[in-house]
Amino acid sequence: MDTMTLVAVASIVTAGLTTGIGCMCPALGEGRAVATALTALAQQPDAAATITRTLFVGLAMIESTAIYCFVVSMILIFANPFWNHVIAQSVGH
Amino acid sequence: MDTMTLVAVASIVTAGLTTGIGCMCPALGEGRAVATALTALAQQPDAAATITRTLFVGLAMIESTAIYCFVVSMILIFANPFWNHVIAQSVGH
Amino acid sequence: MDTMTLVAVASIVTAGLTTGIGCMCPALGEGRAVATALTALAQQPDAAATITRTLFVGLAMIESTAIYCFVVSMILIFANPFWNHVIAQSVGH
Amino acid sequence: MDTMTLVAVASIVTAGLTTGIGCMCPALGEGRAVATALTALAQQPDAAATITRTLFVGLAMIESTAIYCFVVSMILIFANPFWNHVIAQSVGH
Amino acid sequence: MDTMTLVAVASIVTAGLTTGIGCMCPALGEGRAVATALTALAQQPDAAATITRTLFVGLAMIESTAIYCFVVSMILIFANPFWNHVIAQSVGH
Amino acid sequence: MDTMTLVAVASIVTAGLTTGIGCMCPALGEGRAVATALTALAQQPDAAATITRTLFVGLAMIESTAIYCFVVSMILIFANPFWNHVIAQSVGH
Amino acid sequence: MDTMTLVAVASIVTAGLTTGIGCMCPALGEGRAVATALTALAQQPDAAATITRTLFVGLAMIESTAIYCFVVSMILIFANPFWNHVIAQSVGH
Amino acid sequence: MDTMTLVAVASIVTAGLTTGIGCMCPALGEGRAVATALTALAQQPDAAATITRTLFVGLAMIESTAIYCFVVSMILIFANPFWNHVIAQSVGH
Amino acid sequence: MDTMTLVAVASIVTAGLTTGIGCMCPALGEGRAVATALTALAQQPDAAATITRTLFVGLAMIESTAIYCFVVSMILIFANPFWNHVIAQSVGH
Amino acid sequence: MDTMTLVAVASIVTAGLTTGIGCMCPALGEGRAVATALTALAQQPDAAATITRTLFVGLAMIESTAIYCFVVSMILIFANPFWNHVIAQSVGH
Amino acid sequence: MDTMTLVAVASIVTAGLTTGIGCMCPALGEGRAVATALTALAQQPDAAATITRTLFVGLAMIESTAIYCFVVSMILIFANPFWNHVIAQSVGH
Amino acid sequence: MDTMTLVAVASIVTAGLTTGIGCMCPALGEGRAVATALTALAQQPDAAATITRTLFVGLAMIESTAIYCFVVSMILIFANPFWNHVIAQSVGH
Amino acid sequence: MDTMTLVAVASIVTAGLTTGIGCMCPALGEGRAVATALTALAQQPDAAATITRTLFVGLAMIESTAIYCFVVSMILIFANPFWNHVIAQSVGH
Amino acid sequence: MDTMTLVAVASIVTAGLTTGIGCMCPALGEGRAVATALTALAQQPDAAATITRTLFVGLAMIESTAIYCFVVSMILIFANPFWNHVIAQSVGH
Repeated sequence: MDTMTLVAVASIVTAGLTTGIGCMCPALGEGRAVATALTALAQQPDAAATITRTLFVGLAMIESTAIYCFVVSMILIFANPFWNHVIAQSVGH
Repeated sequence: MDTMTLVAVASIVTAGLTTGIGCMCPALGEGRAVATALTALAQQPDAAATITRTLFVGLAMIESTAIYCFVVSMILIFANPFWNHVIAQSVGH
Repeated sequence: MDTMTLVAVASIVTAGLTTGIGCMCPALGEGRAVATALTALAQQPDAAATITRTLFVGLAMIESTAIYCFVVSMILIFANPFWNHVIAQSVGH
Repeated sequence: MDTMTLVAVASIVTAGLTTGIGCMCPALGEGRAVATALTALAQQPDAAATITRTLFVGLAMIESTAIYCFVVSMILIFANPFWNHVIAQSVGH
Repeated sequence: MDTMTLVAVASIVTAGLTTGIGCMCPALGEGRAVATALTALAQQPDAAATITRTLFVGLAMIESTAIYCFVVSMILIFANPFWNHVIAQSVGH
Repeated sequence: MDTMTLVAVASIVTAGLTTGIGCMCPALGEGRAVATALTALAQQPDAAATITRTLFVGLAMIESTAIYCFVVSMILIFANPFWNHVIAQSVGH
Repeated sequence: MDTMTLVAVASIVTAGLTTGIGCMCPALGEGRAVATALTALAQQPDAAATITRTLFVGLAMIESTAIYCFVVSMILIFANPFWNHVIAQSVGH
Repeated sequence: MDTMTLVAVASIVTAGLTTGIGCMCPALGEGRAVATALTALAQQPDAAATITRTLFVGLAMIESTAIYCFVVSMILIFANPFWNHVIAQSVGH
Repeated sequence: MDTMTLVAVASIVTAGLTTGIGCMCPALGEGRAVATALTALAQQPDAAATITRTLFVGLAMIESTAIYCFVVSMILIFANPFWNHVIAQSVGH
Repeated sequence: MDTMTLVAVASIVTAGLTTGIGCMCPALGEGRAVATALTALAQQPDAAATITRTLFVGLAMIESTAIYCFVVSMILIFANPFWNHVIAQSVGH
Repeated sequence: MDTMTLVAVASIVTAGLTTGIGCMCPALGEGRAVATALTALAQQPDAAATITRTLFVGLAMIESTAIYCFVVSMILIFANPFWNHVIAQSVGH
Repeated sequence: MDTMTLVAVASIVTAGLTTGIGCMCPALGEGRAVATALTALAQQPDAAATITRTLFVGLAMIESTAIYCFVVSMILIFANPFWNHVIAQSVGH
Repeated sequence: MDTMTLVAVASIVTAGLTTGIGCMCPALGEGRAVATALTALAQQPDAAATITRTLFVGLAMIESTAIYCFVVSMILIFANPFWNHVIAQSVGH
Repeated sequence: MDTMTLVAVASIVTAGLTTGIGCMCPALGEGRAVATALTALAQQPDAAATITRTLFVGLAMIESTAIYCFVVSMILIFANPFWNHVIAQSVGH
């Protein structure tokens, strides 16, 4: 039953670390984008529409990298082909 | 009973580290966003409505990455498929 | 009794590190937010009400990430499902 | 069955870390690009078309490096030649 | 008696590190807040009341994260449920 | 069959890390280049043609280092001479 | 006598590191606070009373985090419940 | 067959890391060079010819360090004297 | 005699590292405080008395954290309760 | 045959790391030199000849440190006295 | 004779590292203090007496932390109570 | 033959790392010197002779530290007294 | 003869690292002091005597920390009491 | 012959690292000193004599720390008292 244990432990640890590490920089990047958006709004209130639209497109792009990490974590927890193979094998055993 | 121990230990450690590491940068990013919001408010008090609204949308986006990490931690503690499988197995044993 | 020891040690270490690491950045972020709030107050004393309100909302958002970490620590110390399972098992043994 | 376990564990850990590490800097780079785009829009609202177009081309270039990492992760999880070889071998065994 | 030793050692080390690490950033954050408060007082001596009040609220928020860490350390030293369980067990043995 | 396992594991881990690490800095470098391009466009809208052309040449140069890493990863996964040698040997065995 | 040794060694090392690490940032934070206090005094000699009072309150807050660490070290050296338990046990043995 | 395995693993890991690490800084350096080229073009559109020529010479120099690393990687994968010696030996064995 | 060796080694290493690490930041903090004091003296020679007095109070506060570390080191070398206990025990043996 | 394996592995790993690490800073240094050259050209187009000449001498000096590393790598791969000695010995054996 | 060896090795390594690490930051701090002293002298040559006096007091304070480390090193080499105890014991043996 | 292997491996690894690490900072330092030389030339084209002469003396001083490292590497590869002693011994054996 | 080997190895490694690490920051600190001295000379050529005198006193103070490290290294190589004791013992043996 | 091997390996590795690490910061410090010297020459060409003289004294002081490291390396390679003792012993054996 060693294979099962190792695959489970590796999946748990990797799922956690991928989300944990991968969410660090998107948060910083979005913080920077929001910060300059606020500065820009204070400088040029008339361009609010363009600034807000560009900000949302940018936030969506940045958020997408965090979502890649979250997706990989979810795949590793709930749709892990290696774990499925090991379970199938231990059942068919 | 080795499998159970290892899966439990890995889940505990990963749940803690994911929240611990993953909450670092959102806190910094929000701190930056709030800081520039305050600077912007001091420069342009008239644009308070737009600034506040943009700030809240931005904070929600940044907070979302912290929540991804918290969700992964909670899944690992209270809805961990690997742990459930191991428990089911040790009961059916 | 190895399982019990390992789960206890992992819970203790993780509970401490999660709070220890997770409280680093909120403190820095809040320090930054408070610092710019003070600068903003010195520049625009008339906008004190808006600045103070925005600061408190921001501090609450940042503090929330520290509280996620503290909550995970408390769950690991006082409501740890893995520890409960191990205790229940060692009693029923 | 050692080969299978090791290949599975290595694939899981690498898939997670590649996406986790590889998404850090694109997020920072995009955050910077979006931030200067907003500053530029506030300075020169008339050049919005050129700025937006250049921003999107740049974001696509930066996002491409994140996508390289995501692609490598997906290959390692769902189309891993080493894992396929090991499975084929363990079946034909 | 191995369980007792390990739990004791883990509690001691974690209690120390949690306070040691967790007090780093609050100190930096408070230093920053106090520093800008002093700059703000020098720029706008008339707003001393508002600045001082906002500073004290901010310091209390930042100090709270250091206190979370200190509380976790004290719980681990003087009210550690894992240690109590181990002692109770070794007595009832 | 140890040789095969080790070569497979090393190839998987290296392929992932090479892309993961190697895509960090190109993303930062491109982010910087795009950011200054946007600033330059806002300052000198008349020079848009020269700026855009220089930006694209620069992005191509920077992207090339990311592509070197991706190429090495692909070689290690799909055209690995060491793995081919090991497979050939294990077949001819 | 292994338990005693391990608890003693862990207490010694943790006591030293807690004070060593925990005194780093308060020193930096106080250095920053004192530095800006001096700058503020040079800019606004008339506000010396307010500046000095605010500085002393701030220094006390920052020093408090260093004192938490020192207190934990002293508890670990001179009032360590784990060590007392071990000594009591080895005497009653 | 241990020698062969070790040499293969070392070659794979080193080839990947050399390209991965060695491409980090050229990307940053080129990003900086391109960025200042764009700033320079915006300031002095008349000197475009000299700036572009100097930029290309500079990019070639910087790219050369990335190419050194890529060359070492390729030598280690496709023209590795140590691997050739080991293969020759295992054949002549 | 293993206990004695381990306690001695741990005391030596911890005593050195506590002073070594703990004296880093006070030195930096004092350097910063002295530096701004000199700048302040050059700007406002008339406020020399207030600046010097505030500087000395600040230096005393910062030096106090270095002294905490030195005190812990001296306690560990010359008044170490764990070492005394071990010696007493080995004598009474 | 252990000696041969170890020397081969050490040569491979060191050759790669020396080039990989040693090419990092020259790339950064050249990037900085090229960047300021471009700024200087934009400020003083008349001094283009002197600036270009000084830049090339400087780039040659910086490149020389990268070439030292590349030379050491090449010596370790193709003219390694330790490897030659080991081969000679294993032949004469 | 194991105790003697370990105590000697620990004393040597700690003595070196304490001085090596502990002299880093005083050097930086003094460098900063001297640097600002020179800037201050250039700005306000008339205040040379006050500046020089304050500089010397400050350098003495900073140097004191380096001296704490040097003292601990000298104690560990020439007046080490643990070593003396071990020697006394091995003689009386 | 263990001595020979270990000495050879240590010499190879150290020779590579010494050049690799030791060439990092000279490259950065020269980059900085060349960069300011170019800025200085753009500001004061008349002082080109003095600037160029000072730059070359400075570059020679900085290059000298890189050459120390390269010399140590060459000594370790081609004139290593420890290796010579080991070879002489293994021959005379 | 194990004691002798370990003491010798520890002395060699510590002597090297103490000088290597301990000379890093004095070099940086002196670089900073010399740099500001040159800036100060360019601003205020008339104060050259005071500046030069203060610079030399400051350099002597900073150099002193490097010399502490060099002294500890020399003591460990040529006047090491632990080594002397071990040699005396191995002779008297 | 273990003692000889270990002493040789430790001497080789330490000699390399001492020079490699110890030459990093002098190079940076000299780079900074030369850079400000060039800026100073561009600002005040008349003070070239004083600036050049001060620069050379400063470079000599900084270079001295690199030379301390080089001297320790040379002592460890060519005049190592521990190695001499070991050789003498192995001869007299």
